[in-house]
Amino acid sequence: MPSATLVKPGSKVSLKDISPDYAGPQTKEEAEARLNTLRGELEAQQEIMYAAGEHSLLVIFQGMDTSGKDGAIRGVFGDVNPAGCRVESFKVPTEEERAHDFLWRVHKVTPRRGMTAVFNRSHYEDVLVVRVHDLVPKKVWKKRYDTINQFEAMLADSNTIILKFFLHISKEEQEKRLIAREGDVEKAWKLSAADWRERDYWDEYQAAYEDALGKCSTDVAPWYIVPANRKWYRNLVIAETVVEAVKGYRKEWARTLEMMSQERLAELHAYRAQQQAQQKG
Amino acid sequence: MPSATLVKPGSKVSLKDISPDYAGPQTKEEAEARLNTLRGELEAQQEIMYAAGEHSLLVIFQGMDTSGKDGAIRGVFGDVNPAGCRVESFKVPTEEERAHDFLWRVHKVTPRRGMTAVFNRSHYEDVLVVRVHDLVPKKVWKKRYDTINQFEAMLADSNTIILKFFLHISKEEQEKRLIAREGDVEKAWKLSAADWRERDYWDEYQAAYEDALGKCSTDVAPWYIVPANRKWYRNLVIAETVVEAVKGYRKEWARTLEMMSQERLAELHAYRAQQQAQQKG
Repeated sequence: MPSATLVKPGSKVSLKDISPDYAGPQTKEEAEARLNTLRGELEAQQEIMYAAGEHSLLVIFQGMDTSGKDGAIRGVFGDVNPAGCRVESFKVPTEEERAHDFLWRVHKVTPRRGMTAVFNRSHYEDVLVVRVHDLVPKKVWKKRYDTINQFEAMLADSNTIILKFFLHISKEEQEKRLIAREGDVEKAWKLSAADWRERDYWDEYQAAYEDALGKCSTDVAPWYIVPANRKWYRNLVIAETVVEAVKGYRKEWARTLEMMSQERLAELHAYRAQQQAQQKG
Repeated sequence: MPSATLVKPGSKVSLKDISPDYAGPQTKEEAEARLNTLRGELEAQQEIMYAAGEHSLLVIFQGMDTSGKDGAIRGVFGDVNPAGCRVESFKVPTEEERAHDFLWRVHKVTPRRGMTAVFNRSHYEDVLVVRVHDLVPKKVWKKRYDTINQFEAMLADSNTIILKFFLHISKEEQEKRLIAREGDVEKAWKLSAADWRERDYWDEYQAAYEDALGKCSTDVAPWYIVPANRKWYRNLVIAETVVEAVKGYRKEWARTLEMMSQERLAELHAYRAQQQAQQKG
């Protein structure tokens, strides 16, 4: 089975040693067929998670500009019932958001039981862009790794299933993608000179990512490194990982649903008996 | 083209005169093929609306229990990129919500520019269930029709495209659907004796709907009555109506995108020229 690199808790990550080009043994066509099946699985999983109402799912996407966060969200979660799934995009914080702690805006939109939340960027920006551009002193961002781990542990304690994906592309692939946008009217509105300026900080970003991935991969909120130079492989790997992680809960949810159904039916029968008694009486 | 009944502003609605069984001239197979095309259209429309960032889309669903609000949302908006579409479900108000005016919880989740919001129930409950069960005095709910029209006019003034769908089923069809749930473990958890109890108020609800539809259908926020006894026809009609309503904006959005792209490219070229000048200097 194609798979992402699960970051071992406490390990030192070296992104250079993980190929962003890796694409597994299967062909693109095989990958797309399999992805289709997985999208259906994800849709079905969401329905039963929603109905059971016991757990929520939080999926976090991080990666350099053009690494494919938008595309992965659409490619993997595109078939999930929109009533059960929210995508939250974290942009440059507003003035109000900056006037709070860095988890405030994130905590407001964590998924309630039954729901999936997909984060396009996240609180990790506060140890990434913030660190690379010295937006706060080092002693401030240094403490955030622990704070994040404690926050995510608390969410997990409240039945949130957490999965975090780093979309790993090469610097060359990024250049290709930025240039491709220039020739595509449908995508050129996404362009900005800032994207090119940020490329000058490529190494600093990779180092910041290595720290974030190593320090904040935990058993209850693991980081996965996804080879993302090929979009079809990226989507396949993410979908496999999510389906695999959620699979273990399905029996429990099915049991809950069964019990709920029986309770509701008993209630209904009691109501009917009462109605009939009234009609006779 | 199959179509819903557009409620003429200020008209008196008589739901008895509109058949919930109507299913147009096409076969179910034809309808499903056409719906597939329309789902793709909706997906494409959402992408361009998001990119242009000038308008938002608000789609409201109302209807009796089992009328198919969940199913319509999934059936019509199932292919739209979840990053651009939010489904908001309005349940029994919380204590905090009840401590505010009836539009408070609704206003908080109206769609920002670029986004689609789909409401599963809405502020209309405050002239429906609230009226049928006398939850507030008549003089309070009577004023709400005007208040709603003013609120929706303001949203429309801020570039929100508003479409409202009443899913019209017959009392017999509702009974069939409630009974069907009892035999289906996947749906039985949705059952409640309350659904049967509410059926005793069927006529009061229909009258409340007739008032809401007639008093609150406006040029900028029209109500559509959708024959909904057949699920495939219901979905087809809704999808056709949304695509048709949004179509008129697409040229404008395309022009905006074109302009944005040109600006971004100009910016980028200026940045490159500056970089080259620095390298030479």
